[in-house]
Amino acid sequence: MTKYVYSFKEGNKDMRSLMGGKGANLAEMTNMGINVPTGFCITTEACNRFLDEDKVLWDSLFDEIKGHIEEVEKDLNKKFSDTENPLLFSVRSGAVFSMPGMMDTILNLGLNDQAVKGLAHSTGNERFAYDSYRRFIQMFSDVAMEIPGVLFEDRLSEMKKRHGAELDNDLTADHLKELVEEFKEIYKEEMGEDFPQEPMDQLRFAIEAVFKSWDNPRARVYRKLNDIPDNLGTAVNVQSMVFGNMGKTSGTGVAFTRNPATGENVLFGEYLMDAQGEDVVAGIRTPEPISHLEDIMPHLFHEFKDTAMKLEEHYQDMQDLEFTIENERLFILQTRNGKRTADAALNIAVDMVEEGLITKEEAIMRVEPKSLDQLLHPNFDEKELKEAQVITKGLAASPGAASGRVYFHASDIVKNTKDGVKTILVRQETSPEDIEGMINAEGIVTARGGMTSHAAVVARGMGKCCVAGASEIHVDEDQRVFKCRDIEIKEGDLISIDGSTGNIYLGDIQKVEPKLTGNFGKFMEWVDEERQLGVRTNADSPKDAKQALEFGAEGIGLTRTEHMFFTEDRIPAVREMILSKSIEQRKKALDKIRPMQEEDFYGIYEAMGERPVTIRLLDPPLHEFLPTSTQEIEKLASDMNLTVEDVRGTIGELQEVNPMLGHRGCRLAITFPEIYRMQVRAIMTAALRVKKDKNIEILPEIMIPLVSDVKELKYVKDEITDEIEMVFEEMDDRMDYHIGTMIEIPRAALLADEIATEADFFSFGTNDLTQMTFGFSRDDSGKFLTEYAEKKIYPVSPFERLDQHGVGILVENAVKLGRKTKENIHMGICGEHGGDPETIQFCHKIGLDYVSCSPFRVPIARLAAAQVAIAERNQEQ
Amino acid sequence: MTKYVYSFKEGNKDMRSLMGGKGANLAEMTNMGINVPTGFCITTEACNRFLDEDKVLWDSLFDEIKGHIEEVEKDLNKKFSDTENPLLFSVRSGAVFSMPGMMDTILNLGLNDQAVKGLAHSTGNERFAYDSYRRFIQMFSDVAMEIPGVLFEDRLSEMKKRHGAELDNDLTADHLKELVEEFKEIYKEEMGEDFPQEPMDQLRFAIEAVFKSWDNPRARVYRKLNDIPDNLGTAVNVQSMVFGNMGKTSGTGVAFTRNPATGENVLFGEYLMDAQGEDVVAGIRTPEPISHLEDIMPHLFHEFKDTAMKLEEHYQDMQDLEFTIENERLFILQTRNGKRTADAALNIAVDMVEEGLITKEEAIMRVEPKSLDQLLHPNFDEKELKEAQVITKGLAASPGAASGRVYFHASDIVKNTKDGVKTILVRQETSPEDIEGMINAEGIVTARGGMTSHAAVVARGMGKCCVAGASEIHVDEDQRVFKCRDIEIKEGDLISIDGSTGNIYLGDIQKVEPKLTGNFGKFMEWVDEERQLGVRTNADSPKDAKQALEFGAEGIGLTRTEHMFFTEDRIPAVREMILSKSIEQRKKALDKIRPMQEEDFYGIYEAMGERPVTIRLLDPPLHEFLPTSTQEIEKLASDMNLTVEDVRGTIGELQEVNPMLGHRGCRLAITFPEIYRMQVRAIMTAALRVKKDKNIEILPEIMIPLVSDVKELKYVKDEITDEIEMVFEEMDDRMDYHIGTMIEIPRAALLADEIATEADFFSFGTNDLTQMTFGFSRDDSGKFLTEYAEKKIYPVSPFERLDQHGVGILVENAVKLGRKTKENIHMGICGEHGGDPETIQFCHKIGLDYVSCSPFRVPIARLAAAQVAIAERNQEQ
Repeated sequence: MTKYVYSFKEGNKDMRSLMGGKGANLAEMTNMGINVPTGFCITTEACNRFLDEDKVLWDSLFDEIKGHIEEVEKDLNKKFSDTENPLLFSVRSGAVFSMPGMMDTILNLGLNDQAVKGLAHSTGNERFAYDSYRRFIQMFSDVAMEIPGVLFEDRLSEMKKRHGAELDNDLTADHLKELVEEFKEIYKEEMGEDFPQEPMDQLRFAIEAVFKSWDNPRARVYRKLNDIPDNLGTAVNVQSMVFGNMGKTSGTGVAFTRNPATGENVLFGEYLMDAQGEDVVAGIRTPEPISHLEDIMPHLFHEFKDTAMKLEEHYQDMQDLEFTIENERLFILQTRNGKRTADAALNIAVDMVEEGLITKEEAIMRVEPKSLDQLLHPNFDEKELKEAQVITKGLAASPGAASGRVYFHASDIVKNTKDGVKTILVRQETSPEDIEGMINAEGIVTARGGMTSHAAVVARGMGKCCVAGASEIHVDEDQRVFKCRDIEIKEGDLISIDGSTGNIYLGDIQKVEPKLTGNFGKFMEWVDEERQLGVRTNADSPKDAKQALEFGAEGIGLTRTEHMFFTEDRIPAVREMILSKSIEQRKKALDKIRPMQEEDFYGIYEAMGERPVTIRLLDPPLHEFLPTSTQEIEKLASDMNLTVEDVRGTIGELQEVNPMLGHRGCRLAITFPEIYRMQVRAIMTAALRVKKDKNIEILPEIMIPLVSDVKELKYVKDEITDEIEMVFEEMDDRMDYHIGTMIEIPRAALLADEIATEADFFSFGTNDLTQMTFGFSRDDSGKFLTEYAEKKIYPVSPFERLDQHGVGILVENAVKLGRKTKENIHMGICGEHGGDPETIQFCHKIGLDYVSCSPFRVPIARLAAAQVAIAERNQEQ
Repeated sequence: MTKYVYSFKEGNKDMRSLMGGKGANLAEMTNMGINVPTGFCITTEACNRFLDEDKVLWDSLFDEIKGHIEEVEKDLNKKFSDTENPLLFSVRSGAVFSMPGMMDTILNLGLNDQAVKGLAHSTGNERFAYDSYRRFIQMFSDVAMEIPGVLFEDRLSEMKKRHGAELDNDLTADHLKELVEEFKEIYKEEMGEDFPQEPMDQLRFAIEAVFKSWDNPRARVYRKLNDIPDNLGTAVNVQSMVFGNMGKTSGTGVAFTRNPATGENVLFGEYLMDAQGEDVVAGIRTPEPISHLEDIMPHLFHEFKDTAMKLEEHYQDMQDLEFTIENERLFILQTRNGKRTADAALNIAVDMVEEGLITKEEAIMRVEPKSLDQLLHPNFDEKELKEAQVITKGLAASPGAASGRVYFHASDIVKNTKDGVKTILVRQETSPEDIEGMINAEGIVTARGGMTSHAAVVARGMGKCCVAGASEIHVDEDQRVFKCRDIEIKEGDLISIDGSTGNIYLGDIQKVEPKLTGNFGKFMEWVDEERQLGVRTNADSPKDAKQALEFGAEGIGLTRTEHMFFTEDRIPAVREMILSKSIEQRKKALDKIRPMQEEDFYGIYEAMGERPVTIRLLDPPLHEFLPTSTQEIEKLASDMNLTVEDVRGTIGELQEVNPMLGHRGCRLAITFPEIYRMQVRAIMTAALRVKKDKNIEILPEIMIPLVSDVKELKYVKDEITDEIEMVFEEMDDRMDYHIGTMIEIPRAALLADEIATEADFFSFGTNDLTQMTFGFSRDDSGKFLTEYAEKKIYPVSPFERLDQHGVGILVENAVKLGRKTKENIHMGICGEHGGDPETIQFCHKIGLDYVSCSPFRVPIARLAAAQVAIAERNQEQ
């Protein structure tokens, strides 16, 4: 028979998948001799069985649970259903991967109208007993029964107002007794029956609620955002209660062994006295920094600090701890590897190498490639910053700089972002309902809550700039306005926020590029020592090229030449070329564009020096360059001395039912060879000029897109080679050059051995290859891919992460076929996927020479490439 | 050193690829002892070298030619450049595959101002000598120098008019002398130099002209139409002249050993006395039937008949002969397997089996599958035919019945056909310039020319209805009108023509389906004994289904359900469904469509009985069903009580950038499962009803389109299985059924092993698979595929013939993967390719169970399947 329940004594930290992260660590700490309230864990397997079957706990499971309760009762010499000295439990979810704020907790379970009296009596603290009971009723109602929490909060506010109490703590035992009665009334009204008095019923409902919460929409969004599989399930931890709300010598807190924002090696955290559980992270009262604890309870502070250090050393990583002080006794309620900013992750990893705690290899494996993104984002321009008006200062919850228009509701953020507006989400405090708004906003501001509040934790996870707990501001979400002293900021007003200082500024502030030095530089050096895969960038301008070089790009994997066609000074000539009625006319128009293209290429070659640069010849269908508005069409007609009907006629003729599969790429060169001839002339002339001007070696790489057959490639290659030879003759100079092709059509991947006979290199265009292999138009599939993700058919969009399972077959096969023909043929990838860490691992495994991605993803790619190289070596050993 | 020239004595019929068909057969006949004018053949290899190099004959080749000329001189005891008794040559092209009318011939080569006198003297026939010279000048000028032939013809007409001559033969020697001088004048005017007098120069130009003619546009069109590779090249036959224009005891003719239109076993042909070469086929004078020859030259007729029979037996096939009578001496100038109508091919094949000449297997291999098409086309309704007004009667040149509007120029035919107009091409006589018009017209009428005229030969090859030599009509191509007695038919008027009787009718006449009995039935029985591949049909209605059954379909491989949505009584409900704002509303609309779909399926199951029927669930994107005109949109809005903006809004939302890769196929079922549920309910209810009503077994095959992953298939399958179970319960009856999928997305082909776990059958949708594997939109690629064909990148459109080289890899691989998972999984093909003989061969080879094609292609598929089975067996032996 499957064992579904484990006491903490039975487990250890390696049992995450069964006990969840929280349960496994509670077990580990229990066995390390750390003071952890006794309890047990119901496994993720039980959760999955529960969800697969009828969503009812089955009898044999409940028998197993009862056995474990008896064990706890024996340990603590208390009884669960006792009315004199009742044993109370906390019931908490604990998934394999930490999901902050997503899962629900019930404290003080086991209290009822009788037991609350026993608790008051046995502790001699009536206020504490009723405080615990009112909390329990509210949490149970909210979490297990889905009664809106606001009903209880409103009653609590009214009660405080009625009695002139500022904080919850100001309410007396009698007030709380009254509140308990009112809470039970709410429960009865909402549920149509009395609040359950039987502790065992309470427990049953609570466990079911945790299991069910695995599938709530907020949890699903979080999992999707973090690529956590939906079939892991959550464990449930049932743990005897310890109380932080027993008065002035009790409290509760959270702490990190190092600073999770910067990585600084000092204990970092917050606590609240006379508080319970979620009070600290919920942001309802602003907590004290952990260092204060040393002043008021030095002995306990040092005990906590020693425990924290012991845990960090044990886990060899920065720990995130929850603790409770019950009448000056310390209990650890949770430890886990702490979430941190990329900056902190990198600093901690480098520090730990230098402290001798971990190796360089381990350090490299510690930093999530995607997170580096955070380090690469700009900061405010110092000069502008000095002159900027500070509105107020909050907590520096998640670093970075952001400017945008203020919106107060997640839905407005989403809407405006779609319209291209940069936005800042401002809330009293955030909750999981705001996730989508947080994803879309440039930055987040909250008026309440600390460094571990929902807003702060989630923003750091996203690498999004956040200022939390800006307590001076007053947010009115209904009126869509926030006030700070005499300043009023309305919806749509521009502000800027600095997540590294906590400052909030009026208006927009210019940003400057980040400096990638210090630990970053050191770390990336280690990374480059490990990786085998080359990392290039996709860049269409000298500016992009320079940016990418700073980020460590080793070359350009893709220069798209079409973007160069769109600028205002060129588009008239491009349109003239398209509307040409004869080859001569077309050549004349192309002659106007050529010198401009030549200067583009000159700039890029100049920026890149001797590094490789792959330039792709014109790819999109010609109709993309034609105007659509009546006004523009009329202007074009008059410019070209044509009738409007003529221009409209050409536009109509060029329109396509499926432009993605239409007349584009090298197909244009089959019908209009002049276009590619112009482009290669510009490329080779620029290269020869830079070579001469700078006295350097350049090896141009010319890439022909959308090839489906070797004969097609050969045809186009013959055309452009002919033009290149003409350039050499005219300039009386020559150089080696490579002509290669995109592998982006399934047929080309299938016939890569033939295509390799005419190609010096391959570049996998996985965007188009994905579109054609799936039959998904990237422009249209958004509408239904959401449903595919929800229905778990394609959990991750194949446009974000390469579909290794399907498209990957074609890519891997093409690599093998290509190498069969030409052992040393150079191969890379230049689709959007080139910056996705999992895709990069795949590229390493199948033996590509390089990946190419946008400049900001270059460091990510370098790190991902190093990690896969290390992982592979470790596996081989 | 490569041997480029072969004397006829050196060759034989198996040397076609080197000597061309004509040359190889001349050699064969020479060695059989048949009276063939002596000569030699310059090989296709020489042609290819000529075209690849500078299009100039190289010296060593010319030396070889001179050697062979000397041999002929020795044989005939005449000298090529002699002025007394000159040796003259004909120079004719001869490709591997016969290309009627496409290549060019020059007769009487070697004549000049001196030699013509010698010829007159040595033959004692001055008229003949100058007739030969004027013919030579005209042919040489036209063919070798590209001087328009009309210049000479006009001069000839003037000359005849001037001298009151009706026929060419009425001109005297003096007239012809005068004509020769005029022709030489024309030559000088056009070329700027005198007509070449040196025989060796004449020969050089002539050979070059033949080689060049391989690449003329007409030849290219013919090759494209007949799938003849462009790299075969043509041989040149240089043969000593014999003369049919030496007077009343000379003549020339063409004949078939059997009737090429019907297959009847009687000598069939035509001749002209005192005529040369092309006179018979050019249709300038209307020739006499071959049977007449028996009356005027019985001895010679019998000699010819014996020779013909000997050749038919030797070649074991119906022969097409050219002969010349020179002063009562018979020469055979050419023999080849005769082109014939499908009807004739089939009758000859069956007859030859019964005559013991060939085996059943050979008979099956003799009939071109594509040609069967001709037998399946309708004839005129007998009743209507009786009442129809006959305009006139011509020769029944190519069988079939056609009605259409009259046009006189190929370009008008092409233009009107594009606009959906059915057309008949009416010409005085046709020439290779008319080919495109002939392809596009429903039928062809000519006023001049016999059964072997250009129009007749080409039309039969195309399987196109043709009435030739309707001598009563007078065609005025410039005025765009033809007259027949008092009837005047203008451009755009409707006529009907019967290619089996030669009748031309006024107006449109109803057509009836052909009867497929007699030899056809017998032949197809033999075919079915041989083939292993099943042949199903694509049919969307009971009518199509019944038609296909008559043609021998064994089941339905594809019923497209979307066509059923478009009828006038249904489209409103379909649009209502699409515009629904809620599931309930959508279900209500679907409930209106369901009973109609059920009746469709009832009809199809009823027609097909126990034969398998595969029904594909809805495939196209929903926007295809919405109206586009303002009027229709307004009507829909008012019908549905919506605003016009609302309707336009929905239409806008549903529009897609690339609908081919958009929200369609089973993707609709992921978002709107109700649609497929309605469809399977209709299918299963209909099947259960037919089963009960007819007391037969039915095994419904339900096909899910556009699957890209097994999870997607599983999801949709679960939905529809659920609905089917509901139907079973409601109807208190059940039946087995199969659920399968299209393999039409590259990813599905790559992962066919996984998909097979959830599929009872596969049907390869090679239309979409081709689009995605090539990245070619079928709707858009027409524009550039023509250039791809011309540039020999894709000689045949991959939408006409399955691209075995590329797409075929995916198909073959998917077959293997599918069978690996499920050994007996049933597999077929249902794309347009399913009716293409070469594709069918491929399907046989990779082990598909069946092909499915449109009803009219079913017999073609059956025959192609039998041929590949026989070819495979022969290869194994």
